[in-house]
Amino acid sequence: MDQSICAGIDIGGTNTKYSFVDRSGKIIFKSEVPTGNSADPNELIERVCNELKHSANRLGIQDLLAGIGIGAPNGNYFSGTVEFAPNLNWYGIIPVAKMFEDRMNVKTFLTNDANAAAMGEMYFGSAKGMKDFVFITLGTGLGSGIVVNGDLVYGHDGFAGEMGHVIVIQNGRQCGCGRKGCLEQYCSATGLVKTYLEFLANEDPEKFSAIDKTTVNSKSIYEMALSGDKVAINSFNYTGEILGFALANTVAYTSPEAFFLFGGLAEAGELLLVPTKISFEKNLLSIYKNKISISVSGLPESDAALLGASSLAWNELNKISQ
Amino acid sequence: MDQSICAGIDIGGTNTKYSFVDRSGKIIFKSEVPTGNSADPNELIERVCNELKHSANRLGIQDLLAGIGIGAPNGNYFSGTVEFAPNLNWYGIIPVAKMFEDRMNVKTFLTNDANAAAMGEMYFGSAKGMKDFVFITLGTGLGSGIVVNGDLVYGHDGFAGEMGHVIVIQNGRQCGCGRKGCLEQYCSATGLVKTYLEFLANEDPEKFSAIDKTTVNSKSIYEMALSGDKVAINSFNYTGEILGFALANTVAYTSPEAFFLFGGLAEAGELLLVPTKISFEKNLLSIYKNKISISVSGLPESDAALLGASSLAWNELNKISQ
Repeated sequence: MDQSICAGIDIGGTNTKYSFVDRSGKIIFKSEVPTGNSADPNELIERVCNELKHSANRLGIQDLLAGIGIGAPNGNYFSGTVEFAPNLNWYGIIPVAKMFEDRMNVKTFLTNDANAAAMGEMYFGSAKGMKDFVFITLGTGLGSGIVVNGDLVYGHDGFAGEMGHVIVIQNGRQCGCGRKGCLEQYCSATGLVKTYLEFLANEDPEKFSAIDKTTVNSKSIYEMALSGDKVAINSFNYTGEILGFALANTVAYTSPEAFFLFGGLAEAGELLLVPTKISFEKNLLSIYKNKISISVSGLPESDAALLGASSLAWNELNKISQ
Repeated sequence: MDQSICAGIDIGGTNTKYSFVDRSGKIIFKSEVPTGNSADPNELIERVCNELKHSANRLGIQDLLAGIGIGAPNGNYFSGTVEFAPNLNWYGIIPVAKMFEDRMNVKTFLTNDANAAAMGEMYFGSAKGMKDFVFITLGTGLGSGIVVNGDLVYGHDGFAGEMGHVIVIQNGRQCGCGRKGCLEQYCSATGLVKTYLEFLANEDPEKFSAIDKTTVNSKSIYEMALSGDKVAINSFNYTGEILGFALANTVAYTSPEAFFLFGGLAEAGELLLVPTKISFEKNLLSIYKNKISISVSGLPESDAALLGASSLAWNELNKISQ
C-alpha cells in the first residue's frame, strides 16, 4: 500500500490554505494563514513551508511527502509562476513553484484555481474515471478547466481554458477585459445581478427605482426566485439559456462526456440546471444530443481548492510512475 | 536508419486514393480507384488491398509496411469505423479499419479527413514541432482538427473538432444540420457564395436580377475580387471578419500557437487572410494578442489527404515505440 502524501496549497487573495492529502483524497491535515499584503512573496511562502514542515514532523509523515500541488490566481503550469495576479500584492512574475521546491525538496506543480479544481473533480469528485470533461466555476467571474484525454488542456502558453472570455453575444455587455459580450458577463454571480437589474428595470420600473441596488446579490436573487418572484426566476432562466448555448458550442470543440458546475451560482441547483440543460440540448449538433451530462460538482465546496491542488501533484506522480 | 513504410488511404465520395509514404513524408507510390457506388464496402476494400499488396511486392517493400492510416468521411478514431457517411453508398456502421487490418496484417488507424490532414500538417507540413495548433479546412463546408499537447482531440466519442457547427450568429443562416448560424454557413466556399449574393442583392439589385446565380462560385468571386469588384472584396472581408471572430473564441478554449487554413477558400491567400487576422486580433483576449499565427497550410493541396492519412499511422507507431 502506497503511503505517500501530497501537499495541496491554495493561494487566495485573502487567505492561503495548505493541507496534506493522501492518495484516496482524505485530508489528513489542513490549516490556513492570511495571505497578507506584503510585496515580497518570500514572506508568505516561508511561513507556509515552515508550517508544513512542522506539521509533517508532528504527524510523523516527513518522509512520505511525495509532491506539492498549488492552485493560484494567474498560475502558469509550464513555468510554475504566478504572473501579475490581480488579487495579490506581488508584482510581476513570481517563480512560486520553484520557491516551494527549494524549501521543501519535493517536486512542486502549479496551475490556476479552476484547472486545479478540474483535476480535483477527476481524482476525488464526480469525474472519476472520466477522460474528457469540462469544469466550470461560477463565482464572481467564470473560470474553466478543460480535460482532454485524461489531462488538463494548458495550450502552448499555459493559458488555455479561459471560457469566461468566450464572446457569446456580439456587442453585448462591457467586460472588464475591455471587450464586449464575454460569457462571464452573463453566467456568473455578477452576471446574474446585472440580468436581474436589467429585467427589473424593464418589467417593474417602480420597484427598480425603489430598491437599494447594493443589496442585490446572487444569494438574494436565489431566495427571491425560491419564493416565486417572477423577475428572479426569469433571471435564472436567462442565465441558463446563455450558459447552455455556450456549453453546446464547447462540445463542438472537445466533445466532453460531462460538464461540472461549481461555485456560488452552481449551488442554486435546479433553478440554474433546468434552463441550462434545455438550452444545451436545443443548441447541440444532433450527433452530440442526449449523451452529455451537466451536473453540480461532486467536490465539497470548502475543500475543493485543497483537493484540487493536491490532485495536481498526484496526477504528475502518476505520470512519472507509469 | 528506419526503413519502415506506412500506407496512407483517403476514401472520398468519388475516388479513393492510396499510397506508400516513408517517415520523411516522401510519397514513394500513389494511385487511385473510383470509390464506386456499391453498397458492399468489401468491394472497394478488397480492390485497394490487392493493389497495395501488388505494388508493395513490385517495389520490394512488402516486409517494410508498418502501419496503415485512413482518412474517411465520418471516420471514428476510437472504433475504426465509418458511420453513416453521407457521401458513400455504404449503409450503417462499417468497421473499415478492421477490414483493412484483416487483409493486410498490419495495424490500421482511421479518422475523419480534417483530423488526418491536421496530423499531416504536424508531421510533414508547417506545424512540425508544434504541440498545440488548429487545422481548418475551408471547402464546401468547414472541417477542423484540433491538436492539443501533440495529439488530436477526439473527445469521449471520437467526434470532437466539429468547429463548422459552432454557432457564431444567433438566429443566423439556416444550416444543413437543422440549426441556425453555424460557422460553416459563413466561412466556406458555400458561405462565401451566400454572402456575395446577399451583398449583391442589397448593393446592386439590378446586377443581382440579371446574373445567372448558378455560375457564381468561390472561384468566380475570387477572380472578381482580384479585378477590383467591390461586392466581391466585401464578401471576402465579411468572411474573414466572422472567421477571425470564431478563431479568437477558439483560443479561449485551447490556446493554440497557430491556425492553419486549408482548402479551396484558403487558396484566396491575402484576400481572406488579411481581414481574418484583423478581426482575430480585435476579438482576442489581451493575454493572447500578437503571438498566434494564422497562415495557409504547408501541405501540398494534391497530396494533403494521403500525407495526412499516413501520418496517422506514423503517429501511432511513434507512440508505441516511445
